Amino acid sequence: MKDRVSEAVIRRLPRYYRFLCELERQGTERVSSGDLSREMRLNASQIRQDFNCFGGFGQQGYGYHVRTLRREIGNILGLNRSYSAVIVGIGNIGAALAHYSGFEKEGLKITALFDADAAMVGKSVGGLAVRALSEFEAYVSEMGADVGIIAVPKDAAQALADRMAAAGVRSIWNFAPVDVAADMPVENVHMSDSLHILTYRLNNPQELTDTKK
Amino acid sequence: MKDRVSEAVIRRLPRYYRFLCELERQGTERVSSGDLSREMRLNASQIRQDFNCFGGFGQQGYGYHVRTLRREIGNILGLNRSYSAVIVGIGNIGAALAHYSGFEKEGLKITALFDADAAMVGKSVGGLAVRALSEFEAYVSEMGADVGIIAVPKDAAQALADRMAAAGVRSIWNFAPVDVAADMPVENVHMSDSLHILTYRLNNPQELTDTKK
Repeated sequence: MKDRVSEAVIRRLPRYYRFLCELERQGTERVSSGDLSREMRLNASQIRQDFNCFGGFGQQGYGYHVRTLRREIGNILGLNRSYSAVIVGIGNIGAALAHYSGFEKEGLKITALFDADAAMVGKSVGGLAVRALSEFEAYVSEMGADVGIIAVPKDAAQALADRMAAAGVRSIWNFAPVDVAADMPVENVHMSDSLHILTYRLNNPQELTDTKK
Repeated sequence: MKDRVSEAVIRRLPRYYRFLCELERQGTERVSSGDLSREMRLNASQIRQDFNCFGGFGQQGYGYHVRTLRREIGNILGLNRSYSAVIVGIGNIGAALAHYSGFEKEGLKITALFDADAAMVGKSVGGLAVRALSEFEAYVSEMGADVGIIAVPKDAAQALADRMAAAGVRSIWNFAPVDVAADMPVENVHMSDSLHILTYRLNNPQELTDTKK
């Protein structure tokens, strides 16, 4: 594997992974970069280049073995192990994330919920009792947390990210509608970005047939 | 404006918009493509090229006027008007979306909620009474819907997308964890993609300093 993989390649990997999971589910055994190119509307040589970053996986004249490729990309993405996650902020988004059963399949195990509101503490959400935010540091210090999920209001998000960093959380998945920064892996989820793409398309219907990248 | 704007440029516009909103909020009056480049970790000539797709907005030696640029990009994204949206599926995600007050600021007005479960019908969620899914076509035919938000389980998502298309919904914002297709603008939200990027980074800490694109 190359020492440095470009951000653009990394950002495409989850899409390859999703697509290969779908092919595997359909019982497809092998796929060419040409097929992948047509279905994913990406350039075939781009796809081959991307896979080459990780040592390639294809064979001339055969293409790619779907299950092997799916598993290898899954391993690169770290999906061959599991991760513990804590959610802070059990409002609408936090509760929806706590209830969502799909994360377990992705290897993400929600281990604890925290809220600053005393009225929430002790309530059961998605099978876990909400803990007081004041217990956050003690919990993380004892149990660890691979992922800290931020689901608090915008104005509280950065302070919480700092607190997560100080407590020893290993990465941040931020659902507050504002970017947070920290000296660890951080993913800021921007749901409004996809809404804006949608409103753009509603106003530019002539571009509907553009290839998707 | 060019007839065709590439998908990659369109996908960057919401990020420019978010960043300019933040600059405006901080009281910044003007910004150069060099500043934008440093802050957004994009190539400065890339940024100038992107803006040129829409007729440019900058002046040599001055840079960009933040408020004007923010407003122009907002107009391109169609944020100068409002959109009606209906949510189908009032489970955890649907309810979280129904409760989220931030959409109104984006011009998205949730006008109706629908659920197939009779036990949900009539309940008030985020100030709206949940309607029976059997009333969906009649409602959309009378009131219209710019955006149909899909928040049903994965297996029901494509059938619902077809139903939305037949009913005359103008675009789809899909939160079910599976891609849907329709002959109108469709945005499939893949929350697990950003989780996979996070697990990748947890397993490749040496790449943390890569520039973000």
